[in-house]
Amino acid sequence: MAIPEKRINKFVETLKNILKQKATNLRIHSITATSEAGSGHPTTCLSAADIVSALFFHAMRYDTNDAQNPNNDRFILSKGHAAPILYAAYAEAGIIATEKLCTLRQIDSILEGHPTPRFEWTEVATGSLGQGLSLGLGMALNGKFLDKSDYRVYVLLGDGETAEGGVWEAAALASHYQLNNLIGIVDVNALGQSQRTMYAFDIDTYCQRFEAFGWQTIGIDGHNFDEILPALDQAKASTDKPTMIVAKTFKGKGVSFLENADNWHGKALAKGEDLDKALAELGPLHLEPIQIEPPTAVESGVGHSAAAVCEPPDYPTDEDVATRGGYGTGLAKLGTANPNVVALDGDTKNSTYAEQFMNLHPERYFEMFIAEQNLVGAGIGLAKRGKIPFVSTFAAFLSRAYDQIRMSAISQANIKYAGSHCGVSIGEDGPSQMGLEDIAMFRAIPQAVVLYPSDAVSAERLVSEAAAHEGIVYLRTSRPKTPILYDTDEKFPIGGCKVIRKSNEDIATVVAGGVTVHEALKAHQILAAEGIAIRVIDLYSVKPVDAEALKAAAADTNTTLITVEDHYPEGGLGDAVLDAVATENICVHKLAVTGIPRSGKPEELLEHHGISANAIVEKVKSVTGV
Amino acid sequence: MAIPEKRINKFVETLKNILKQKATNLRIHSITATSEAGSGHPTTCLSAADIVSALFFHAMRYDTNDAQNPNNDRFILSKGHAAPILYAAYAEAGIIATEKLCTLRQIDSILEGHPTPRFEWTEVATGSLGQGLSLGLGMALNGKFLDKSDYRVYVLLGDGETAEGGVWEAAALASHYQLNNLIGIVDVNALGQSQRTMYAFDIDTYCQRFEAFGWQTIGIDGHNFDEILPALDQAKASTDKPTMIVAKTFKGKGVSFLENADNWHGKALAKGEDLDKALAELGPLHLEPIQIEPPTAVESGVGHSAAAVCEPPDYPTDEDVATRGGYGTGLAKLGTANPNVVALDGDTKNSTYAEQFMNLHPERYFEMFIAEQNLVGAGIGLAKRGKIPFVSTFAAFLSRAYDQIRMSAISQANIKYAGSHCGVSIGEDGPSQMGLEDIAMFRAIPQAVVLYPSDAVSAERLVSEAAAHEGIVYLRTSRPKTPILYDTDEKFPIGGCKVIRKSNEDIATVVAGGVTVHEALKAHQILAAEGIAIRVIDLYSVKPVDAEALKAAAADTNTTLITVEDHYPEGGLGDAVLDAVATENICVHKLAVTGIPRSGKPEELLEHHGISANAIVEKVKSVTGV
Repeated sequence: MAIPEKRINKFVETLKNILKQKATNLRIHSITATSEAGSGHPTTCLSAADIVSALFFHAMRYDTNDAQNPNNDRFILSKGHAAPILYAAYAEAGIIATEKLCTLRQIDSILEGHPTPRFEWTEVATGSLGQGLSLGLGMALNGKFLDKSDYRVYVLLGDGETAEGGVWEAAALASHYQLNNLIGIVDVNALGQSQRTMYAFDIDTYCQRFEAFGWQTIGIDGHNFDEILPALDQAKASTDKPTMIVAKTFKGKGVSFLENADNWHGKALAKGEDLDKALAELGPLHLEPIQIEPPTAVESGVGHSAAAVCEPPDYPTDEDVATRGGYGTGLAKLGTANPNVVALDGDTKNSTYAEQFMNLHPERYFEMFIAEQNLVGAGIGLAKRGKIPFVSTFAAFLSRAYDQIRMSAISQANIKYAGSHCGVSIGEDGPSQMGLEDIAMFRAIPQAVVLYPSDAVSAERLVSEAAAHEGIVYLRTSRPKTPILYDTDEKFPIGGCKVIRKSNEDIATVVAGGVTVHEALKAHQILAAEGIAIRVIDLYSVKPVDAEALKAAAADTNTTLITVEDHYPEGGLGDAVLDAVATENICVHKLAVTGIPRSGKPEELLEHHGISANAIVEKVKSVTGV
Repeated sequence: MAIPEKRINKFVETLKNILKQKATNLRIHSITATSEAGSGHPTTCLSAADIVSALFFHAMRYDTNDAQNPNNDRFILSKGHAAPILYAAYAEAGIIATEKLCTLRQIDSILEGHPTPRFEWTEVATGSLGQGLSLGLGMALNGKFLDKSDYRVYVLLGDGETAEGGVWEAAALASHYQLNNLIGIVDVNALGQSQRTMYAFDIDTYCQRFEAFGWQTIGIDGHNFDEILPALDQAKASTDKPTMIVAKTFKGKGVSFLENADNWHGKALAKGEDLDKALAELGPLHLEPIQIEPPTAVESGVGHSAAAVCEPPDYPTDEDVATRGGYGTGLAKLGTANPNVVALDGDTKNSTYAEQFMNLHPERYFEMFIAEQNLVGAGIGLAKRGKIPFVSTFAAFLSRAYDQIRMSAISQANIKYAGSHCGVSIGEDGPSQMGLEDIAMFRAIPQAVVLYPSDAVSAERLVSEAAAHEGIVYLRTSRPKTPILYDTDEKFPIGGCKVIRKSNEDIATVVAGGVTVHEALKAHQILAAEGIAIRVIDLYSVKPVDAEALKAAAADTNTTLITVEDHYPEGGLGDAVLDAVATENICVHKLAVTGIPRSGKPEELLEHHGISANAIVEKVKSVTGV
């Protein structure tokens, strides 16, 4: 029996009235909490209130008792400065106590100025604009291709942040992968931080751009539920395209003196007259519980499992192999041992050797093309959905995504970065292709682990160590083929190092990494021929660094350490050593790449930049005076 | 009297034949030079040969005797791996000797694997894909709005690199500023490094996207001069829009076994059979001189002049002022003193205070909206045209453009970066907004100067110092208002520091920067009350660092240095000090921000992260044992 239209209309009317009241509540919470905090961005919350109401209390399906439910629809607040309305929504959903909202921005509160995972319903940190769509893309890839879950990913963007290139990297990849489970909403309030946006209220321009990038687009009035609700239904119905809803709104909507007014960005209302007037205009708060639709209980695919045991390395000792080759082989083996491992690369897979993983596990490899910001953002999204992503490109090009890498730490993501072609040892391609600041970049990321193998065996082993470690790991690999140094059963624990040459007569200790380990070994040989003994350490774990081993070596060798690295002098291996012995009376002499390098043969460049065997020999002699 | 059509047609036919032969020459040079070098990217040169021929020998106007002529049309090879054809074009233009082409990629050659300004006709380094359009945008802004020169800027892009978000940041800004003097050509050869591009030969998709971003677009066959030449004419005729020519080409065009073949990316032809076969197919080289149209001799606007003298700082000593405020005031004064100074900001000008410059010199301020990659890229383009750009945003968001910053050093750009809101001292906005790795980022850039003022007077003075210094300078400013420390006539030379508390009884030296200088002064006061004397150094120049002053202070104070910084422990002020005394027997104790910070009040956070006056007092006592 069909339901008569009258009853349907009545139901829709009731729904709209509930959502309107919820939107009012969200506005009240947002301005009250920011006034209490004395700072924040209330007006950007007000423009999004009706959209957020429709999402959280109608469109989205989630288990209010379980933030971790793998089948929950995901929500990403790309315009992170609207954090107060995010917290307000969870309060209205009955997930956090309303009183808690007034702890906003306090040092002992989990409700931070911009969302972070310290609040468990925030999966990913936002606040650096233009990153949310990539994070959502990673989660959407997981839902559609890996977990085969029917959850949808909703991303709320500001209009100003669509100027960020990262948004368009994600837009191109989302349509390429036909992510119909990815739904974006642009809150076009036309006001940036310091002035009007480039396009003000020109909804058509936004729609044309996303359409040209292969999206279904729907332009609406973002304050009218008669347009918001059908748009969300149409988005959900998409079978092969991601959808972008472009909503015309007013910043400060609902409070006359804030509405579409400039110079209110990032300003809280003063308690007293201003706040009272605004609250009076918004009308009363009606706290009524609401039923949230739960997610469908589908089997969520593979769960999170630690890295399993891999096939051991296997190389003929007489063959030279590049560490990037060891990386590829190790990653492919890891993929066989651990179903949670996924790999992403930016059209460099035949150089980083991520292609070895792709060839064995095509269903868990995602080509991200030449777009490193989205490469990293998507990796973070996959990590937050329980996968262990290995994200690879040239070390130099990871600098393109440093902001996303920085944010991955704030998001507490379990993600692994692999940078190949580090240093001048790549040779003829020249400085633009040489990663020479990558160690400095990653050492500065809190809790990040930095690993730097010197041969294919250690490279393979360190891939497994990286996967077994919960958190951010950076793996630095080199282009040139180098000899195998270690037995295939050698272990390389994070935080360790290898003393590979040692005698009681050592007059100094040379600390090296990657290609310079081989230069140090040559130097050892040259000096030995002259009757001079030196100690050689392979510092494969640059962070954390084995301070005790370094101090012990220094104590044995006239408190003299010589570091040699294929990296700029600042922030690299040498500084890691310096920091480890900062409060000891140990002299550290650094050899590193100074100045901008140029094209040339690898061995010529090692010589030219003073990080060759000869340079080490010279340094040993000059500092020890032998 | 009208020229009869027959003669016009004859002329056009002759022109096309000349351009065809030139294209053949370019192909021959490209494969010969790469084969000689034994590496490189010949096939990507072959796809672009006809376009490059049309540009260099017909469309572009330049003075072949003067690379620096400010009215030359500019050419940017965004697909930098096609460097061999760039050098070949200059050889065919009679600018470099043809024999020189075979020095490609050699360590003593200026013809590097990817273009760098070591070859004077290369204004900007390329090779990190997706940056060329922003560089061109900066040059086009200069031509249209500053120099008022009629030069055009031509940017040759690869199709794969259009996946880079930076391309779309530049695309949006170029149409926003109606840069009809900016002409891009996408060489759509459909082959990336490791596989087919996302869109293969789908010219329409590329056109639709640039059109949606406000560009005139023209789709053509990139090997047919009957389409290339009219397209370039149409582009030149544009009055209010930038133009993107989207050219369908074949990678390896002209050599049967390379044409549109996969797995040839970045591979040189082996000398002997392969090379001979290719050369035979291309036919003979005809080296004939060609007349290049010279630029119109317009007055090129303001020339390059060093920074002039600014109005001195002027602050009431009893008023607290933020260093970012000092930056804004100093920049505005500098703009009055030096007509070459320009400012760019990414919709944060009311926070960085770049708006003070904008208010006084609106014609030399360019709003770049929320798109930091293009913000920096455009700055580099302006710098290479003789301007002194000050590029500002939050310190944290400069990480978004680290690849461009890295490349600005390889481009030898005279550019100034200003990052505000550094460290936990910003307070409630939380970690996403805190610049805590920015010193590490910039210290790792070769020859970059890193300045960190502690009060408004030093901030103003350091703005002038930055402008007077030729090269990259980073200026780090803070959000909180802090007391004025220095007389208004105090000088702050790059490479210096200020010993602001000193006595013969000092038991340790505290080295601080920015907000921690004020914490160190409080600590000095607290300890003085207990009869304990410490030395306090304001390390306003973090790079270069005043090593002698640090050693002298250490020698006076029990060889004990305590560094305190609002930055992560790695790569910051502490490591700069450590590096300066690495080979002395001096103990350096570092206080820095460890772990991911959170929202809270500035003073709470300084306390929480152990960089407050109390933390310094404690450290002094613990390391000296008093």
